[in-house]
Amino acid sequence: MYSPSHRAIVEAISTSGPLTRTELAALTGFSKASVTNLARDLIEIGLLLEADTVYGQGRPSVQLALDRRGGYLVGLTLAHRPGSVLVLTDLHGNVQASRDFAWSRDPEEVGGLIAEMLPSLCAEAGVNAQRVVGIGVAVPGFVDQHQQMVLQSSFMGWQDLPAAAAIEARTGIATYVENDANAVAVGEKLFGRARESRNFALVSLGIGIGCAHFVDGRLHRGHSGGAGEIAHATIDPQGVPCRCGKRGCLTTIASVRAIVSAATQAGLTAETLDDVEALAERGEERAIEIIHKAGSALGLSISHVVQMNNPELVLVVLLDGALDGLMHRVVKQTIDACVMPRFARHTEIQFEKVSTEFWARGAAAVAAERFLLNPVQPTPQTSLQDHKAI
Amino acid sequence: MYSPSHRAIVEAISTSGPLTRTELAALTGFSKASVTNLARDLIEIGLLLEADTVYGQGRPSVQLALDRRGGYLVGLTLAHRPGSVLVLTDLHGNVQASRDFAWSRDPEEVGGLIAEMLPSLCAEAGVNAQRVVGIGVAVPGFVDQHQQMVLQSSFMGWQDLPAAAAIEARTGIATYVENDANAVAVGEKLFGRARESRNFALVSLGIGIGCAHFVDGRLHRGHSGGAGEIAHATIDPQGVPCRCGKRGCLTTIASVRAIVSAATQAGLTAETLDDVEALAERGEERAIEIIHKAGSALGLSISHVVQMNNPELVLVVLLDGALDGLMHRVVKQTIDACVMPRFARHTEIQFEKVSTEFWARGAAAVAAERFLLNPVQPTPQTSLQDHKAI
Repeated sequence: MYSPSHRAIVEAISTSGPLTRTELAALTGFSKASVTNLARDLIEIGLLLEADTVYGQGRPSVQLALDRRGGYLVGLTLAHRPGSVLVLTDLHGNVQASRDFAWSRDPEEVGGLIAEMLPSLCAEAGVNAQRVVGIGVAVPGFVDQHQQMVLQSSFMGWQDLPAAAAIEARTGIATYVENDANAVAVGEKLFGRARESRNFALVSLGIGIGCAHFVDGRLHRGHSGGAGEIAHATIDPQGVPCRCGKRGCLTTIASVRAIVSAATQAGLTAETLDDVEALAERGEERAIEIIHKAGSALGLSISHVVQMNNPELVLVVLLDGALDGLMHRVVKQTIDACVMPRFARHTEIQFEKVSTEFWARGAAAVAAERFLLNPVQPTPQTSLQDHKAI
Repeated sequence: MYSPSHRAIVEAISTSGPLTRTELAALTGFSKASVTNLARDLIEIGLLLEADTVYGQGRPSVQLALDRRGGYLVGLTLAHRPGSVLVLTDLHGNVQASRDFAWSRDPEEVGGLIAEMLPSLCAEAGVNAQRVVGIGVAVPGFVDQHQQMVLQSSFMGWQDLPAAAAIEARTGIATYVENDANAVAVGEKLFGRARESRNFALVSLGIGIGCAHFVDGRLHRGHSGGAGEIAHATIDPQGVPCRCGKRGCLTTIASVRAIVSAATQAGLTAETLDDVEALAERGEERAIEIIHKAGSALGLSISHVVQMNNPELVLVVLLDGALDGLMHRVVKQTIDACVMPRFARHTEIQFEKVSTEFWARGAAAVAAERFLLNPVQPTPQTSLQDHKAI
């Protein structure tokens, strides 16, 4: 019964927020009568609800919104160790409950642990476990476009691994894996600060560096799922050897791992970016130099993102350490110096410090998107028939 | 009468080449009866024709192809001075006639000159001038998404100029302007080596440097029409001052203008890249160094394109000078050194030397695409009605 026309209604509301039936008709091109029928179906299955009444010219009209209780999602980040987190969210991306998760590289163990933790997670949130409609898992590395197979993740030690199926087998719930930066970008597009943006980029700075692009409203995966690989963009061809086989990759200069390692090698005592920032704050010249080098490299890469893809928004999220110190200032100053004024006018750069829960919520968003677009998984044939029947 | 369903048929054939009615039904999801009706309409208006008969299992079937005489297009490059060229092409992108064009920055003069030259161009090609359905004009700079307005082109000295309307007023023919690299990319997608590629990048090396991306089968313009601005990517933050206001932009190191200028400043006699290549070939160390520096910078930028957007194909086209000398070798070697092995396996890099006519044909392709997608410019309302009637 869930046809592409139903999907068009759900997509319009997911993208634009609550809309009246008249607005939906204008946006989708369906007649008002069709919209009324489609909306009735969607209210019946609990995906939409009638929200606020809008008073304007003519008769007051009611806005249709996604019912946040239309389905619940589990999100898990395996990109952080320690710091692996499992969350339960509603359809609006609100975290209902959250648990620390024992990181493992065995997907069956991961699936088993989720199955084990789910009842108490649901109980805490007061949610019937039957209403959990999808699981999203964020991992660093390359993932196939169907979000089923991890093609390569050196962090996980995975190669061509059908991770989603393994987790689904233990939980009985539709499961999708996604690259961690992509997952966070999907989360920001669906629930966060990128809702209104058709073209945006996300850059994450943590132990490693991640990047994802939305182009024309869609996640840009590239030909083989590798779009956004700025971590291994060559910044300094004569630079430090990288485990990828090249030299001077961005991640060897600007990742938190690289910053802390450079500080340690310079004889400083530091375990986190915060430690190095604190040393710089106190005037420690070696710390200042290390952060300058890292910030310049990251800022330069972000300027390349801006001029290559011309996003309207770049979200820079930092996991470890505060983003209000020297690193932040150097990154900003380098972007200012390396982006053409013409682009600078059209591009907003936002910085935000986030927790690992943010990644888990992104993972949940991947499952939410799949559920919203395909809640009953119609076959392509069925879809076309349904479409014509409208 | 040209509905979105007709367009779907034309798009499928434009993208895939000649197709049987059965293949079209499978690709578009329309019933075979609908495809037969739609194809009859399209044959009637001269856009499609019945081409080869395919013998296989079952009854032999006839392939439908774009009628190359379904409409003729004018293409003009203003990106080259000297070397501005006006061409007439058929719907398959075959150049039917070509003329040198007196470059001008006055769009009314450009329009007047096209109108003046069109009769002899058509006569030479044996084409009725009534069958010319569009004009495409390639210019360097930023162009709006409707291909009507040049937002900024320092080369042309244009700012927020409705160039298309000015040319259309003099010629009476639907006119579209486009960024020169975008135009060449559209040409290669419609008629050239990128036909089969959904994700590809084009990098052009000439007096300046251009870049365009196709993402998921569509030209990626970015938020404000600036996607692909690698010419002003900062390569060397301490480098040569650039007229954009920054320092060390790619174009200050790797453009033909920069290479020739560096050679002259080093006391060498050179007017073209070929001259500098010839000096390098003879062992002139200063020429070798200049080309090494330029090729490394261009190769580095191409490696960033590959890892940022993960295209399956990068077309590197060179206007001035041969691409079989030292420059070519250095660019290739740098790409090999700076692209992760994982990407290298999935990305084909093709180099080709082209003439300015290639740009003019790209401009014609922009007009061809507009004509194919919208030959009678139905309003959105009409389209949806038509769509539902199928």
